[in-house]
Amino acid sequence: MRQIILHERPDGMPTKDTFQYQEVDVPAQKSGEVLLKTLYLSVDPYMRGRMSDLPSYVEPFQVGKPLNGGIVAEVIESDGSVLNTGDIVTGALPWQEYIAVSPDELRRVDVHGVPISSALGVLGMPGLTAYFGMYHIGEPKEGETVVVSGAAGAVGSLAGQLAAKRGARVTGIVGSREKADYIVEKLGFDNAVNYKEENVSDALKAKCPDGIDVYFENVGGEISDAVWPQLNTFARVPLCGAIASYNLAEGEKDIGLRVQGPFIKSRVKMQGFIVGDFAKHFSEAYRELSSLVQSGDILFEETIHEGFDQVPDAFLGLFTGENIGKQLVKVAAPNGEK
Amino acid sequence: MRQIILHERPDGMPTKDTFQYQEVDVPAQKSGEVLLKTLYLSVDPYMRGRMSDLPSYVEPFQVGKPLNGGIVAEVIESDGSVLNTGDIVTGALPWQEYIAVSPDELRRVDVHGVPISSALGVLGMPGLTAYFGMYHIGEPKEGETVVVSGAAGAVGSLAGQLAAKRGARVTGIVGSREKADYIVEKLGFDNAVNYKEENVSDALKAKCPDGIDVYFENVGGEISDAVWPQLNTFARVPLCGAIASYNLAEGEKDIGLRVQGPFIKSRVKMQGFIVGDFAKHFSEAYRELSSLVQSGDILFEETIHEGFDQVPDAFLGLFTGENIGKQLVKVAAPNGEK
Repeated sequence: MRQIILHERPDGMPTKDTFQYQEVDVPAQKSGEVLLKTLYLSVDPYMRGRMSDLPSYVEPFQVGKPLNGGIVAEVIESDGSVLNTGDIVTGALPWQEYIAVSPDELRRVDVHGVPISSALGVLGMPGLTAYFGMYHIGEPKEGETVVVSGAAGAVGSLAGQLAAKRGARVTGIVGSREKADYIVEKLGFDNAVNYKEENVSDALKAKCPDGIDVYFENVGGEISDAVWPQLNTFARVPLCGAIASYNLAEGEKDIGLRVQGPFIKSRVKMQGFIVGDFAKHFSEAYRELSSLVQSGDILFEETIHEGFDQVPDAFLGLFTGENIGKQLVKVAAPNGEK
Repeated sequence: MRQIILHERPDGMPTKDTFQYQEVDVPAQKSGEVLLKTLYLSVDPYMRGRMSDLPSYVEPFQVGKPLNGGIVAEVIESDGSVLNTGDIVTGALPWQEYIAVSPDELRRVDVHGVPISSALGVLGMPGLTAYFGMYHIGEPKEGETVVVSGAAGAVGSLAGQLAAKRGARVTGIVGSREKADYIVEKLGFDNAVNYKEENVSDALKAKCPDGIDVYFENVGGEISDAVWPQLNTFARVPLCGAIASYNLAEGEKDIGLRVQGPFIKSRVKMQGFIVGDFAKHFSEAYRELSSLVQSGDILFEETIHEGFDQVPDAFLGLFTGENIGKQLVKVAAPNGEK
């Protein structure tokens, strides 16, 4: 089978040389473990941080070792004590075609009513991230104005819909006309700003005439610099991601508008978070998101690359904005399916 | 009598031309008003913002109209219904030597045990600002590391002492050796960083080896840029002031290190505030601060300029860092005193 290791740490934008495929033996299933076949593999922007050797909230990937992240897999060998052959599971697992692991590392995926791949998106880490960032930090109220950057992505598309469900007016910032149409026509955002074709500052002034009460931050950089002066009194800024800054070269600094001036003037609260900070609320969030997805109140999209050899392309595509919704790689079909 | 009007809006650093003295008649005391003699006048960095014609949380000063701010005054004429001649009061009042005003605009100053000028400092707006910023937003815990910038000023000197009372280790950032000695030797800060003689980043690494849990922000600019990468997980940043940015010329932008990267990594909460946001807690705060001052648990300093003609110099001195503690102008002595 094949696995993907971190070949060299990127300095700046990752390239295909960041990754290396290796042929290794399919692992033997030891006692207390199950053997998994990888079905879907998630690529996420935060993984870029783990490719650098800097202290962070998760340990860096090691050069020469397999990369890892969210995977949906099928149990193909099991002693039957906890999981059965054919069960669909998810976990943070190494990027390889077959994986031997303890069931303690896995969560069973509900296969009814939603595609199993959604365990990596709307009903997985990105979904929970949108949920906690919007509802526990942003806390939009009826009639408020919410702006979401990266609004067509896995997290942003959901964050905006969740805000709308609280009665907020929602503007999404995106990087193409196709994405703008998608979030407005399909997802029900009130409007969109296409930062590649519009001046973000002017467009926000026109589309958010009452100012901005919640800014859900996914991108950082100049787009966000344009947001700060338009925040209303007591605005909230959940800091989820800053993809514009992830590929700075070593020693390169992230320079832009300082926030202290506008934040004091408007008494803004900004808070960085990661999904794990809300672990004790996971079951409540899964329940609410599952119900919203099954009722069709929340829609989601997946951009699926086909084949294990597509993983580097799928990952690199995150930084060129190619995906709508969750960016995934389909590695294999479950046994008995195509 | 004299009053001081806003002569012209400053573009960048204010100068003596920002101010103009005018001779006007002493106002007549109308029914329902008292006549005050100004004793102490407060100059505060936030006033710089009001000199610009930009939307903010307080309306801009008007060109040709008297400036105003915190004043301690003596009642010299009154119908005796609410206040008596000889009472000492404070309020946000026009910069003039005599003032006619409704008692509703005034708060009586407790003249026992503390100088009446402290109603403009430790027992006034700056004291409350330090109290709410540190205790309601910073919330330092026993053993945590707190850094205060502008640490020898009216707000910072108190904020650091309040953090120490919660059992935190406190480092103050200041701009002179005299101020460093003052906050460490007199006020009991654990140590000081003199940004004019030390590299702030290196000095903080050495003096805060466990990282920074609370950063009380008074200054903005490059000093704060050096703080962001050293914030610990779940650090809090009360945003009180950004004096380094107040004198930017029109159109000049406040450019520096963007915070999103370090704030996501460490899940920092940053919150802008002004003292008025906590109005419903004022009496609790006055009580606690008065008790701490009277017991000697909290010390304070005042830099007092003598004479109404010194007001512009006192104000401009705020931006060159001349003051230790509260910057004040003594305009007159109470009747019967010198």
